[in-house]
Amino acid sequence: MLINEPTKQNILDAHERIVRQIRHTPILTSSTLNSFFGCELFFKCENFQKVGAFKFRGASNAVLSLGDKELQSGVATHSSGNHAAALALAAKMKNIPSYIVMPKTAPQIKKNAVQGYGAKIIFCEPTLQAREEALKKVVEETHATFIHPYDNYSIIAGQATCAKEIYNELTDVDFIIAPVGGGGLLSGTCLSTNYFSSKTKVIGAEPKEADDAFRSIRDGKIYPSVNPKTICDGLLTNLSEKTFSILRNNVNEILTVEEASIINAMRMIWERMKIIIEPSSAVTLAVIMENKETFSGKKVALILSGGNVDLQKLPWL
Amino acid sequence: MLINEPTKQNILDAHERIVRQIRHTPILTSSTLNSFFGCELFFKCENFQKVGAFKFRGASNAVLSLGDKELQSGVATHSSGNHAAALALAAKMKNIPSYIVMPKTAPQIKKNAVQGYGAKIIFCEPTLQAREEALKKVVEETHATFIHPYDNYSIIAGQATCAKEIYNELTDVDFIIAPVGGGGLLSGTCLSTNYFSSKTKVIGAEPKEADDAFRSIRDGKIYPSVNPKTICDGLLTNLSEKTFSILRNNVNEILTVEEASIINAMRMIWERMKIIIEPSSAVTLAVIMENKETFSGKKVALILSGGNVDLQKLPWL
Repeated sequence: MLINEPTKQNILDAHERIVRQIRHTPILTSSTLNSFFGCELFFKCENFQKVGAFKFRGASNAVLSLGDKELQSGVATHSSGNHAAALALAAKMKNIPSYIVMPKTAPQIKKNAVQGYGAKIIFCEPTLQAREEALKKVVEETHATFIHPYDNYSIIAGQATCAKEIYNELTDVDFIIAPVGGGGLLSGTCLSTNYFSSKTKVIGAEPKEADDAFRSIRDGKIYPSVNPKTICDGLLTNLSEKTFSILRNNVNEILTVEEASIINAMRMIWERMKIIIEPSSAVTLAVIMENKETFSGKKVALILSGGNVDLQKLPWL
Repeated sequence: MLINEPTKQNILDAHERIVRQIRHTPILTSSTLNSFFGCELFFKCENFQKVGAFKFRGASNAVLSLGDKELQSGVATHSSGNHAAALALAAKMKNIPSYIVMPKTAPQIKKNAVQGYGAKIIFCEPTLQAREEALKKVVEETHATFIHPYDNYSIIAGQATCAKEIYNELTDVDFIIAPVGGGGLLSGTCLSTNYFSSKTKVIGAEPKEADDAFRSIRDGKIYPSVNPKTICDGLLTNLSEKTFSILRNNVNEILTVEEASIINAMRMIWERMKIIIEPSSAVTLAVIMENKETFSGKKVALILSGGNVDLQKLPWL
């Protein structure tokens, strides 16, 4: 596991390590959306990634970076979202145990997904304290290695491989836009951009209703995410020490967007591109929508972070 | 325009003619679906085609096959579906007029789509007679060339380019499955399979509730499609002389499927593959679902014919 901010070589190594088990996701374009927004948009489809989200990159890199002794005891985390499923699958593929601490109140569909990958679920009360205590107990009992969803340099190096793949295929990208929640994907994107496409500007996309990252970068200190009221269920967490430090030094700007724009952007991508993305992915196109002049005539890469949506509950119904 | 059943060279020419204006659609795979069904599935994504359906291939080939004099007068058809939008766009790209006869009762969203491509819409009563009279009148007045949605060899040669692209990328395909409505896509698929992958078996996929093609091939005569009660709005029409004749000599089998299987298959593709397909596309996977033993261990190409769905009305809601 990495103990320092990932170097260029660390990201190359991470990609080499995970390339045979991740899906090499396509970059799609839409001539309709290009002419509508007056710029060249390139959508990196992590909704097609295994487990339906970019999180599988980081989880794979973390698991495949463990030593033999650590592998024996397995991995643990707390999450009810895509990181839990990603870590469970990465552990299953390496044939090691995984322990996921999850609030009792998590939707059945998420419990099933994680269980389907063979993880052991430890249920706790839906509070931060209960979650941390449950995790501590699991780690003490099993000696599993705790894999934080984003405050972990091996996770960040794994997420960085997504932008790396974009720069393998595209040159002269003016902007790259990634969603920001805990900051794992965005900080990985910043590092890969520095190393592989240093003229590209990195924009973080965040819901206005959960703008803790925007305020944290503006004011130079980490704000907690307090009762965010956004449909972007992947962007509810706040930055950590490691992600904040990378973003602070590297991100060009964080742009916040309205909920209505997120829903419009999500629907536009479903209707025009015929692909399923979750609301957290749609913040990237919502940024284009609310800032048309900034991106006019530019070449812009957008990371569609995931596609896990409850098809019974669409935000426009 | 072709006046005989397309030859191998006709299909190669069609592809060459349209290749710069169609989208070269990807072939996607899903390891989850492969292990679930115990076979190797390759999904040709015509839902990503321009206008959201394979129909743009045939319409492009028909328009680009017109002589200079015919081009001046433009093209006409009757359709309220994907063929109308496809012909309108193909005409627009060639900068010629298009006239679309459509029932007054067609959904506003379809009228808007066709109008958006610059077609002139002629509304008629929603009967076969009214439609044919309206079309006859338009053709007399404008001298536009009538482009039938499928009873037209240039259309069939255009649709054949879809399977041609599959065989450019895949070898040793055991089965290819395409939906059958009027039979344009399926008969083109039969021809390309004969010419480019003659060991592959061609299966037509049809809703049980609209099984006129199945009965037509079984009994050796064209049955009309009478009040079909299926959610597959692209598969309501019956075979024509030209498509019937090709299918009769070439299709290996037409397999019919239940509505419940179509809905399950559609939802499975949305959830697992994160792509949006219309019900008419889902009949292909429904065939696999209802005939697991037949396809066990086989390499199967499925044509996902389109992705035009009303996102307000999903069949599982």
